[in-house]
Amino acid sequence: MPEIHTIPEGGITTPLGFSGAGLAAGLKRSGALDLALVYSQAPCSAAAVFTTNRVKAAPVLYDQRILQQNASGIHACLINSGCANACTGAAGEAAAQEMAQEAERTLGLPRNSALVMSTGVIGQQLPLDKIKAALPAIANSLSADPEDGLAAAQAIMTTDTCPKSFAVRVQTEAGSFAIGGMAKGSGMIHPNMATMLAVLTTDATVAAPALDAALRAVLDGSFHAITVDGDTSTNDTVLVLANGQSATPAIAEPAGDLYQAFVAGLLHVAQHLAQEIVRDGEGATHLVQIDVHGAASPEDAKHVAKAIANSLLVKTAIYGRDANWGRILCAAGYSGADLDPDQVDLWLGDLHIVHEGKPHDVNEERALDILARYEVTITLDLHLGTGEATVWTSDLSHRYVDINAHYRT
Amino acid sequence: MPEIHTIPEGGITTPLGFSGAGLAAGLKRSGALDLALVYSQAPCSAAAVFTTNRVKAAPVLYDQRILQQNASGIHACLINSGCANACTGAAGEAAAQEMAQEAERTLGLPRNSALVMSTGVIGQQLPLDKIKAALPAIANSLSADPEDGLAAAQAIMTTDTCPKSFAVRVQTEAGSFAIGGMAKGSGMIHPNMATMLAVLTTDATVAAPALDAALRAVLDGSFHAITVDGDTSTNDTVLVLANGQSATPAIAEPAGDLYQAFVAGLLHVAQHLAQEIVRDGEGATHLVQIDVHGAASPEDAKHVAKAIANSLLVKTAIYGRDANWGRILCAAGYSGADLDPDQVDLWLGDLHIVHEGKPHDVNEERALDILARYEVTITLDLHLGTGEATVWTSDLSHRYVDINAHYRT
Repeated sequence: MPEIHTIPEGGITTPLGFSGAGLAAGLKRSGALDLALVYSQAPCSAAAVFTTNRVKAAPVLYDQRILQQNASGIHACLINSGCANACTGAAGEAAAQEMAQEAERTLGLPRNSALVMSTGVIGQQLPLDKIKAALPAIANSLSADPEDGLAAAQAIMTTDTCPKSFAVRVQTEAGSFAIGGMAKGSGMIHPNMATMLAVLTTDATVAAPALDAALRAVLDGSFHAITVDGDTSTNDTVLVLANGQSATPAIAEPAGDLYQAFVAGLLHVAQHLAQEIVRDGEGATHLVQIDVHGAASPEDAKHVAKAIANSLLVKTAIYGRDANWGRILCAAGYSGADLDPDQVDLWLGDLHIVHEGKPHDVNEERALDILARYEVTITLDLHLGTGEATVWTSDLSHRYVDINAHYRT
Repeated sequence: MPEIHTIPEGGITTPLGFSGAGLAAGLKRSGALDLALVYSQAPCSAAAVFTTNRVKAAPVLYDQRILQQNASGIHACLINSGCANACTGAAGEAAAQEMAQEAERTLGLPRNSALVMSTGVIGQQLPLDKIKAALPAIANSLSADPEDGLAAAQAIMTTDTCPKSFAVRVQTEAGSFAIGGMAKGSGMIHPNMATMLAVLTTDATVAAPALDAALRAVLDGSFHAITVDGDTSTNDTVLVLANGQSATPAIAEPAGDLYQAFVAGLLHVAQHLAQEIVRDGEGATHLVQIDVHGAASPEDAKHVAKAIANSLLVKTAIYGRDANWGRILCAAGYSGADLDPDQVDLWLGDLHIVHEGKPHDVNEERALDILARYEVTITLDLHLGTGEATVWTSDLSHRYVDINAHYRT
């Protein structure tokens, strides 16, 4: 089994050969950091998963095209906040391409080796001049220093209250490699929507198809297992870059011990960043973990967990520290999953509150204690099969309504 | 075409031969009305549609059984608020049956001719003694007086702020009949959840299968077209009773002019009550109508309309009077419906804000005027086909969070 060690102050620049930078290009009126660059002199294998929304932002469409052509030769990813470049038509697609190609020119990179991401206001054309003007400065400030990795993480924030940056070292019998990452959460600014972006970096040597398999293997346990308000944005992107600068052997196929060690490390980083996004969910006062066991299938388990996680009634009850188990059973009931109401067991923390569909140990005092904690676990056993799923979510507070209703006032 | 006239102060007792009553049986600690009775001396054809939630309350299971056996011989419906009789196991099912049979005994009715509904706290056994004790008094106070119909509508309220009661007279070439109704909305009280109940009454003569067809024909345009928070409760029920006391000919089949006139009248009443529920949505400050045109299919149109209606981001934006069209397109994009982002047109009221997927007439001042009104219409044209749907919803306000988080404090 690989040993996975957290690296203090780790991030996208922790793996060998990666550098990062963040600066203020003037896209945010506040003057905050709004342009981030991730760079590797050695070419990277790359894999990405994009939003399933039918309305896809221009940078998503651009990156999909580049990755089809050149998934083994990526050197950089340039990311702006302050403008999503979504619903911008052909002009927006041309802007995404020019943003990437200008980054390639500035960094002296081959054609089609830079990717782009955008997050922020929808329906406005990208202020390309500001990005172009800032490119020489951001290229000059690239470094492997943890502070510059953190600056990149700060530059991709929208209403996130803190940067999300993390890295681990994975120790295997064949040597060690590092995996780092940064993410931004579902913060929303007017007239904008939830966007989740993540960039993961590693100095392991992983062929592009194996990297793609590894990314897809960890999503269900990380970024696909979180939900803040159930909306899927036009820009959601998770990208992983592997530059092969560690001494560990190459992972050519999605199989074997080293591949499994890589997946374990990638899951660790992705899960940490995903949980950070939920912790920083807008106005969140609780991190809620929903564990579903005994479902007829893994898909059913996921449906139940997500229905509970997305129920406004459940989320407001947890905010109000109200042990409202009826709302939890109700959400399970309409999830679409196979369910026998008379067989469901439900725990709030370690309090066995429902047994076989009926109230069991409804100790209001203990329930209040459990709900007074920041982290709350809801466990359901459907007693129908072996399907399992875990989902993380935040509660729904007055602050959420404030942030999303009154950004302009 | 039939003429449909609204009856001032109309309700469940407007159709000939129906009487109603409401009283306080002590189920609500507040002392408010909590027991309602609808009665017809003449036997009624009955049809009902129940919650699709897999967790069904005991009265839902009971009524389903009775309607299978005796859909042409129903005389009464006894409804309590204050206790949902859900998640109460075998004891709860026995209680629902005893509630119905005790009503039959008190009213001198044949077996299996009374239905029951419950709404309120989940997971608590029904206080059957209080209901039994109140039955003689409520039977005695039955009358066709509009005030008693209104008392019944009051007695089924939970966190509704006002009773919902309505009736029309349908004038046809073959004579006239009346249709009345009452409903309660998705008010939630601890530890309870949204429940929508409606009872519709008519003195038209409609055979049970035709009545069932008529009810199902009007749901998509009324109770199935509203959403407050997307949760489907354990108790949701819409019941229609037809006692044949008008002079119009019998409607034996779901076809023909008279049947169509009946459907038109039923839709009118159901739609009015459904909109009343949304108007009284918890903390609602806007009634939002979402019209989708040009979808590839009617199902797609409904998916798009419901995704928009249930988006927290859209709902909070409308509460904040923020013309956040990006959130609307985004919700359409993840609805699962066929959609070409470059073909979508979007109107806020009569403001053509998006044309072919891109911002068009984004007049913020006019948008603010439109959003300052209580009723807001969002219109989408997908330009893909002929599928259409309309959905009504409320916005998401601070009050919603208050009501659902802090009921006990």
